[in-house]
Amino acid sequence: MAHALGHNTYGKSGVHLVVVDRDASPHTVVDLTVDIRLEGDFGAAHTDGDNTAVVPTDTMRGTVFAFARAKPVGAPEEFGLRLARHFVDTVPAVQAARVGLRSTQWTRIGGDHPTAFVADTSVIRTADVRVGVGGAEVGAGVADVAVLKTADSGFSDFFADAYTTLADTDDRLLATRMTADWRYRAVDVDWNAAATEVQSVLLRSFADHHSASLQHTLYAMGGAVIDQCDDVADIHLLLPNVHHLLVDLTPYGLDNDNRVFVATQEPYGVIEATVVRDGG
Amino acid sequence: MAHALGHNTYGKSGVHLVVVDRDASPHTVVDLTVDIRLEGDFGAAHTDGDNTAVVPTDTMRGTVFAFARAKPVGAPEEFGLRLARHFVDTVPAVQAARVGLRSTQWTRIGGDHPTAFVADTSVIRTADVRVGVGGAEVGAGVADVAVLKTADSGFSDFFADAYTTLADTDDRLLATRMTADWRYRAVDVDWNAAATEVQSVLLRSFADHHSASLQHTLYAMGGAVIDQCDDVADIHLLLPNVHHLLVDLTPYGLDNDNRVFVATQEPYGVIEATVVRDGG
Amino acid sequence: MAHALGHNTYGKSGVHLVVVDRDASPHTVVDLTVDIRLEGDFGAAHTDGDNTAVVPTDTMRGTVFAFARAKPVGAPEEFGLRLARHFVDTVPAVQAARVGLRSTQWTRIGGDHPTAFVADTSVIRTADVRVGVGGAEVGAGVADVAVLKTADSGFSDFFADAYTTLADTDDRLLATRMTADWRYRAVDVDWNAAATEVQSVLLRSFADHHSASLQHTLYAMGGAVIDQCDDVADIHLLLPNVHHLLVDLTPYGLDNDNRVFVATQEPYGVIEATVVRDGG
Amino acid sequence: MAHALGHNTYGKSGVHLVVVDRDASPHTVVDLTVDIRLEGDFGAAHTDGDNTAVVPTDTMRGTVFAFARAKPVGAPEEFGLRLARHFVDTVPAVQAARVGLRSTQWTRIGGDHPTAFVADTSVIRTADVRVGVGGAEVGAGVADVAVLKTADSGFSDFFADAYTTLADTDDRLLATRMTADWRYRAVDVDWNAAATEVQSVLLRSFADHHSASLQHTLYAMGGAVIDQCDDVADIHLLLPNVHHLLVDLTPYGLDNDNRVFVATQEPYGVIEATVVRDGG
Repeated sequence: MAHALGHNTYGKSGVHLVVVDRDASPHTVVDLTVDIRLEGDFGAAHTDGDNTAVVPTDTMRGTVFAFARAKPVGAPEEFGLRLARHFVDTVPAVQAARVGLRSTQWTRIGGDHPTAFVADTSVIRTADVRVGVGGAEVGAGVADVAVLKTADSGFSDFFADAYTTLADTDDRLLATRMTADWRYRAVDVDWNAAATEVQSVLLRSFADHHSASLQHTLYAMGGAVIDQCDDVADIHLLLPNVHHLLVDLTPYGLDNDNRVFVATQEPYGVIEATVVRDGG
Repeated sequence: MAHALGHNTYGKSGVHLVVVDRDASPHTVVDLTVDIRLEGDFGAAHTDGDNTAVVPTDTMRGTVFAFARAKPVGAPEEFGLRLARHFVDTVPAVQAARVGLRSTQWTRIGGDHPTAFVADTSVIRTADVRVGVGGAEVGAGVADVAVLKTADSGFSDFFADAYTTLADTDDRLLATRMTADWRYRAVDVDWNAAATEVQSVLLRSFADHHSASLQHTLYAMGGAVIDQCDDVADIHLLLPNVHHLLVDLTPYGLDNDNRVFVATQEPYGVIEATVVRDGG
Repeated sequence: MAHALGHNTYGKSGVHLVVVDRDASPHTVVDLTVDIRLEGDFGAAHTDGDNTAVVPTDTMRGTVFAFARAKPVGAPEEFGLRLARHFVDTVPAVQAARVGLRSTQWTRIGGDHPTAFVADTSVIRTADVRVGVGGAEVGAGVADVAVLKTADSGFSDFFADAYTTLADTDDRLLATRMTADWRYRAVDVDWNAAATEVQSVLLRSFADHHSASLQHTLYAMGGAVIDQCDDVADIHLLLPNVHHLLVDLTPYGLDNDNRVFVATQEPYGVIEATVVRDGG
Repeated sequence: MAHALGHNTYGKSGVHLVVVDRDASPHTVVDLTVDIRLEGDFGAAHTDGDNTAVVPTDTMRGTVFAFARAKPVGAPEEFGLRLARHFVDTVPAVQAARVGLRSTQWTRIGGDHPTAFVADTSVIRTADVRVGVGGAEVGAGVADVAVLKTADSGFSDFFADAYTTLADTDDRLLATRMTADWRYRAVDVDWNAAATEVQSVLLRSFADHHSASLQHTLYAMGGAVIDQCDDVADIHLLLPNVHHLLVDLTPYGLDNDNRVFVATQEPYGVIEATVVRDGG
């Protein structure tokens, strides 16, 4: 046979765990969807059908639930670290484990109800933990946060060629669905405080920036996080440009000085970059 | 030919309109996705390919944008009424028009930013306006609001047969993604205030109810709206039962007294009912 | 209390059943997603939290699986009839049962493999069975079948007003994602043969029609089914107009005589009508 | 400022192009959704708001449409190469361009209709072209092909620990939604023939394999492609394990020897690996 196994990984996705702390008064709710991936000495499973080294993904699922009961879950990052370390430490074939988590925030109904909650889906918080032979690495993020600016956004003086039809503008509606992923410089951060702070800096810097392009705003947002959040090593931002096109109302005898827009889904621009700590 | 045209309707869906009021300080943003459906004397288009009476769906789209510029949009219900009345009043073939609207709420970043916003996707507000020969009818609603209760929910003493495996419980986690649609008794309601009040009553009554079943809670929620919101004629509630199954942790030597749940997507129960004003 | 219970129904959705007939050689696979809804004397559950009459949705789920083992499943319509009749006949409170089914077709890999299959997702077949005091009613359908015509489609001579910008065309690309639902005139039809025939007539009539509008084509398709399929009582067609817009290539010095289109998702037109048997 | 720009890229996604060749008899339809990403000297846009080097994503969109008219589109891989080379060759700042394409196949209605088509959505074909300073690289793939095996699949003798509950089985239903991506060894392959061949080898090897695990089958599939398709350099397979759980029918007094399954969506296993040409 002239073929061989290259990079491989496997795991369980979509383990949707909800934990109620009923000893707390009021009750608290943790809502996590967990993805696990393992790497290691699993070649024989592929090449020979030898499962001796393989921990079933069903076992991963069970481990998530058992761990959620054995000790308080804690922050998503902390729970991810416990799980990832468990697989690396106890399963002989495992060389590296990655645990991704999506957290849904549940808000008390009326602000203070002890046992009833409404989901706050505006911000999905994520965490991403890797444990390998070189130690642990913890990341966190937010997914799909819809934001827009009605002022302080333009796009002009760009490269032009025979396929250019876009006109310069110094005033446009800028909208995106922000996905951000940052890595921490340590593995013992105050996870909840840090995530809250980064989210806040991202939103404020988006709001206050005088934007010459979505690239320009991305860099301002990432730079603000690096400058203001000491725990963050670097941050990756994925910003789709959710185009809001100015509607031509001249057929109806109406002007439209940046008032009426059609929001479109496709096609969409995508801007993606990492902002790093200088010297880091 | 042994066939004939039965009930028919047509229109435009997914007209996603974003309107910025730039004269306001701070700016305000209206974000509506509009669906239009018309009924009337459109038989010849079907049977003979005669389009004389047909207002193109492209014209409906243009009308939405032109109307959004010609006058302040106002509440979704008000904008829907203007659009629906326009088609009934000005297009000869139209006998009835229905306008559905989904509204995304944009919250000021940091609470008070004048020109930057983050979407609050936890509650999607809807409106549904019908104008016909018999006059206008206005409805409103909320879509897909995820709520859960960690106490005061049981399900027991139900009908049993040879296919029953479910055990009685007097303590379970109850979760749903509420969709509610209510109709108003008038066409000149304070739409924003009424929608806010109904939403608030729905959440509070869900939270405070001692639930013997999701049916029981549905009726309590609908009844509270009828009793407390004078403007509402009736309310339809569609409540999927988002099952949170208690995980069996005995294989791991752990108990689980309503602490650790797996949230499942399929299959799911669905409870659906209308609560009406008595005598109405 | 000034409120009362109106129309209500409940059930289980998304019961995804896969049945392998291993006695058959080659194996056969049935893949059905089943939704059940019951109506009847369930008022006390809503108003008093009295579950005595309520068959749990969990029992519905179990019934689906048990029925799938007890006897060969048969056509989706037949399985739906068995289930619906069971609930009406054996659960005292039930006055009417509705069973909806979505069927995924699995094709043998290579055309004849006895035990390996690939899903044919181009056509999702549906069935809809209702059993009540007045007897049984059986419907069937197809969902989301993407079709397009590159010739024989125009749209012109329509109603025009101040909001009209669309130009007449006698040659456009017509595309839709057809959803059709028809009702049968009997409850002992050869379900698989009938469904295949209706699907075939729908596709052929779409293909061969000289279309003056999507309404015109809808009526031709529905009429062809009524005329050619004796078992069908009436047919409802829901045809979104999946707009393919001709791209303006003049900025690039290129013509575009119906060659290059951009397919758009939103907004989209929707045409919906029922075609009935005349006198029926 | 203690921060700096790291890796960055940008582009346009979701350019949905439909091209009709009307000179052909019968008509042919090409349906491609195109994503473009560029890398290069775009730092000043991020750091200084200087757009001089930036080709707008709107221009990318226009280029796709203009290129589709200027010459016959050809295979997706060929069209991707033309686009990617254009950006690298003509936009000074661009150092590398990546073009991803998703192709929907349209089948003639009735097998031979000249101008009417139905989409075959069972297999979505993909292509992925990169052009950089080191030359061009062409990949292709299929996305989300649902397949299942009712025989020749087991899973046993795996690693066990305190969290293991899964039992050994030598007969289970194996189902996946295959996503495969392979890279070619050259840039002048007969793209359509090669893609058809790889698809066919993947399906046949899945069907014929005696599976000890999904890892085992993945490797057999990838190895078959390497062995039988000379043009392929390596292949990456992403195989979710779409769990079909055997339903426990003992509460209903029924056995279930691998007949009745419930298909579940979450959680799901994921197996992912690359199979390479040995020595390559």
